[in-house]
Amino acid sequence: MTTISSYLLTRMHQAGVGHAFGVPGDYVLDFMDRVVESPIELICTCNELNAGYAADAYGRLGGIGAAVVTYGVGGLSILNAVAGAFAERGPLVLVSGAPHSKMRHRGMLMHHLAGDYHMQLDIFRNVTAAAVMLTDARTAPEQIDRAIAACINEKRPVYIEIPVDLVDQHCTDPDDGPLAVAPTSDSSALCEAVAEAAELLAEADNPAVLVGLEVRRFSLAQQVTDLLEKTGWPFATTINSKTAVTESHPHYLGVYQGGFSHGPAHDTIEQADCLLTLGAWMTDITTGGFTAHLDDSRMIAVNSDKVRIRHHYYDQVALGDFVVALTSALQGVPSDLHAHSPTPYQRPAEFTPAKDAALTVRRFFEALNHWLDDDMIVISDIGDVIFGATELYRPQTETFIAQGYYMSIGYSLPAALGACFARPDRRAIVFVGDGAFQMTPQAISTLMRYGKAPIVVVLNNDGYVIERMIHDGPYNELQMWRYSALAEAFQTDGAAAEGRLVKTEAELAAALKTAADTTDRLVVIEAQVQRTDCTEILARVGQHLRDLAAEH
Amino acid sequence: MTTISSYLLTRMHQAGVGHAFGVPGDYVLDFMDRVVESPIELICTCNELNAGYAADAYGRLGGIGAAVVTYGVGGLSILNAVAGAFAERGPLVLVSGAPHSKMRHRGMLMHHLAGDYHMQLDIFRNVTAAAVMLTDARTAPEQIDRAIAACINEKRPVYIEIPVDLVDQHCTDPDDGPLAVAPTSDSSALCEAVAEAAELLAEADNPAVLVGLEVRRFSLAQQVTDLLEKTGWPFATTINSKTAVTESHPHYLGVYQGGFSHGPAHDTIEQADCLLTLGAWMTDITTGGFTAHLDDSRMIAVNSDKVRIRHHYYDQVALGDFVVALTSALQGVPSDLHAHSPTPYQRPAEFTPAKDAALTVRRFFEALNHWLDDDMIVISDIGDVIFGATELYRPQTETFIAQGYYMSIGYSLPAALGACFARPDRRAIVFVGDGAFQMTPQAISTLMRYGKAPIVVVLNNDGYVIERMIHDGPYNELQMWRYSALAEAFQTDGAAAEGRLVKTEAELAAALKTAADTTDRLVVIEAQVQRTDCTEILARVGQHLRDLAAEH
Repeated sequence: MTTISSYLLTRMHQAGVGHAFGVPGDYVLDFMDRVVESPIELICTCNELNAGYAADAYGRLGGIGAAVVTYGVGGLSILNAVAGAFAERGPLVLVSGAPHSKMRHRGMLMHHLAGDYHMQLDIFRNVTAAAVMLTDARTAPEQIDRAIAACINEKRPVYIEIPVDLVDQHCTDPDDGPLAVAPTSDSSALCEAVAEAAELLAEADNPAVLVGLEVRRFSLAQQVTDLLEKTGWPFATTINSKTAVTESHPHYLGVYQGGFSHGPAHDTIEQADCLLTLGAWMTDITTGGFTAHLDDSRMIAVNSDKVRIRHHYYDQVALGDFVVALTSALQGVPSDLHAHSPTPYQRPAEFTPAKDAALTVRRFFEALNHWLDDDMIVISDIGDVIFGATELYRPQTETFIAQGYYMSIGYSLPAALGACFARPDRRAIVFVGDGAFQMTPQAISTLMRYGKAPIVVVLNNDGYVIERMIHDGPYNELQMWRYSALAEAFQTDGAAAEGRLVKTEAELAAALKTAADTTDRLVVIEAQVQRTDCTEILARVGQHLRDLAAEH
Repeated sequence: MTTISSYLLTRMHQAGVGHAFGVPGDYVLDFMDRVVESPIELICTCNELNAGYAADAYGRLGGIGAAVVTYGVGGLSILNAVAGAFAERGPLVLVSGAPHSKMRHRGMLMHHLAGDYHMQLDIFRNVTAAAVMLTDARTAPEQIDRAIAACINEKRPVYIEIPVDLVDQHCTDPDDGPLAVAPTSDSSALCEAVAEAAELLAEADNPAVLVGLEVRRFSLAQQVTDLLEKTGWPFATTINSKTAVTESHPHYLGVYQGGFSHGPAHDTIEQADCLLTLGAWMTDITTGGFTAHLDDSRMIAVNSDKVRIRHHYYDQVALGDFVVALTSALQGVPSDLHAHSPTPYQRPAEFTPAKDAALTVRRFFEALNHWLDDDMIVISDIGDVIFGATELYRPQTETFIAQGYYMSIGYSLPAALGACFARPDRRAIVFVGDGAFQMTPQAISTLMRYGKAPIVVVLNNDGYVIERMIHDGPYNELQMWRYSALAEAFQTDGAAAEGRLVKTEAELAAALKTAADTTDRLVVIEAQVQRTDCTEILARVGQHLRDLAAEH
């Protein structure tokens, strides 16, 4: 007999959930028993925020993320991670336990209850594509289907609340196979939009493409690559969409960030006489704090649910449909466009450490860029590391993750946990600053607990350097930890992790070599640099923001 | 010239905010500069949840707590702590930075934004007595006054959002002195309610009093003590209100928890022919999972905003006014009531460690109860420790803190930070289980950073023992940390903390002695016990809940 929990878990599994991240609590233990019995593996983290970040990263890497938490204390603790997934379109199913329905009906004061019994549901409506409280075995299947379908369709989190008494109630069987997902393009609108875009692009002398986040979320790498191959147009990505298309492509320009980016990514995108943006968002980050010079009159902006050509819109045109139809429609693209040859990101041919040279941020990233393996997944936290990591050469698709818009520091360590489960075939390498590291360090213990072996590189500049460059004050100081020693305290057997503190180029090179060879355990490399040393791009960003502040 | 930020900080300071806990982020840096310049000291924590718990504990100890965070990633990360304060009536002012108003007006996609610009405000409306977004220098003073007054009046958190461009805008001066707080009793209703209650109580043969949380929140210890002294009635507290009145009082019965409590606290409260509850709530925790046998027909329930006598209500009767008026009204209380002599909680006269005896939970609490100094503030986390800590003898008022209703594990370590700043004259001692410890360990680093010297006692039973007793499964396992060694990784100078691992009674006794003498630094004592060892009360609770589950 099918129960509500088995129905839900079947739907989650069909949708691509292989692992669920969570923290136990009494209102969710019955449901957790059902997870343990299901094909979905339950991964227990130290706290709920970490479970949320792990589920988010898991979802970004091709499947759907899932998190399981208890009511109130659990649900409200994971909120920020769910909000991040909502902001950056990460598909994630959050299941929260809840008190017995009888208690809700009577309005009893149960522990973990902060307001009324609909408060948590109401809060999650703000950051999900669908939020449901299961109340009845007759309606639960439809509620579950609607929520999971919304997660798949919209690539956004959904919230499902299951009171303890509903877990084992019987309900109808799920249909065979995964949930049908509705097609979303109106064929006439699609046809008209593509025809108009094709004409503008065919007439352009210097078209260019900005590949955005939605290309990753809707798994359109191949379709976009086909378009780029056929046309020979140069293209850039945004921070959020880095590695949506391979960076080894000869027409790859780099990551565009408005006035914060320099070189071909900046010049070719801004000088295009027709710019095609695919699934990109014009956020303050994408536009370099709105320093971008992009003219709507020369732009075709295609997003998951609409197309804007110059100043008019088409509704009900799906991004994937548009890309495929445009590729078909484009014939006779001027062949000289293929002659474009911007400088793509490259791996430095060699890195020769200067003996005893104290490490600098610039040399740190040169060393890492040289050393990185193409197969690794780079997970960058927020802070100066994201500026450096953005310029790393990543020739394989889907080998870079960062919260390039929501920018919640502390994301990277728990995200590595999600990445290690989603892609066990790739080694994860985390770039994290000291400030971000202090947010969520216990994720290291969870990685060790489950035998995962990422490499965690802590760029320790003794404080929040990104804020120092923008707006300094005493609040930008941190307690200096022994970052490379922390993993030792997270274990009792002494064998599952290794830590190295490096201060010179030679020490870093040696530590990286050892880390690459040490594949059976987690490695922490703490790289100490000067307090005000930073990437070139952060120096530019800081100057820009200080100039803005001075204007006021 | 007064600015919006100086107005707000003046009001906060007048209301009792001496310290504000927070994490910097770009939308709040301008405001943080103003905090740094103000009489309010800014304490920076590793993450926002920790700041929230610290502010909550600070607020519980007599003043008003305050937290300062950035928008989105900060605001949503602190939500669970604010919800806990809301659930348990903790006065707390949360100030969140926000993007420039211009960006909000234009709907720009700014980093840290997860939905629309009103989302964070809407979310906080659920867990605050007042939530305001400052939008204009003309209206800001009134908005601030309304929010701070609500915090003082209702003893609940309030939310104030300040966009970066409003921080330094000029506004009117605050009036002299603190905000007027409106009186709340209707004198006719008060008079009638007190007369009715006095008559019922005077006629009773075995009256008793249950002192609840609101007595602490509204600082009514003296008024309630006067009532108890005059009448000689026996009284109990709840977990949340432990130490609201001194436990050295000869008529103190202990902590009442319905059927989970035994002895005089249980018997005298349940056998009272007239039970007067003062500021108590009938939650699942207070009532021992609704195992309490309390008859509304024999009850006078006085709360902060209403009085219930048997089955009818009086509105607009304030708890403090009622207690004072009742004390005056009661004349000629039968003198034999003074003969009540229940067994109060006591400090064990001695604790003689059995040589080489492995530590048990029972003996652990006996040792701690014997060793505890009256002046210390006990901060208990959730887990089996709260059952044990509840029975510790605490003769001084306001020397026990725990989230006895919202029950968010991980509360205690950050709460100790708040307690150390609120009451620097008292040493804080934290009781925390291993599961709770793993939620928020980085608070230890913040305690060390600010030179605080609490004693952290980790009761390590290798897993979530409270859940093992209720409902066991593989999710109740934890990665075993070296808890006593962790503090070493949180420092680079090696001098600011000390850790001890103890497994026997003798080792515990020795470690406690050293900890008492080591007053200049933080001490972590990790006490290892067997995996299924627990307090007697948890064993009863577990049995009760398993019986309930078997009935279904």
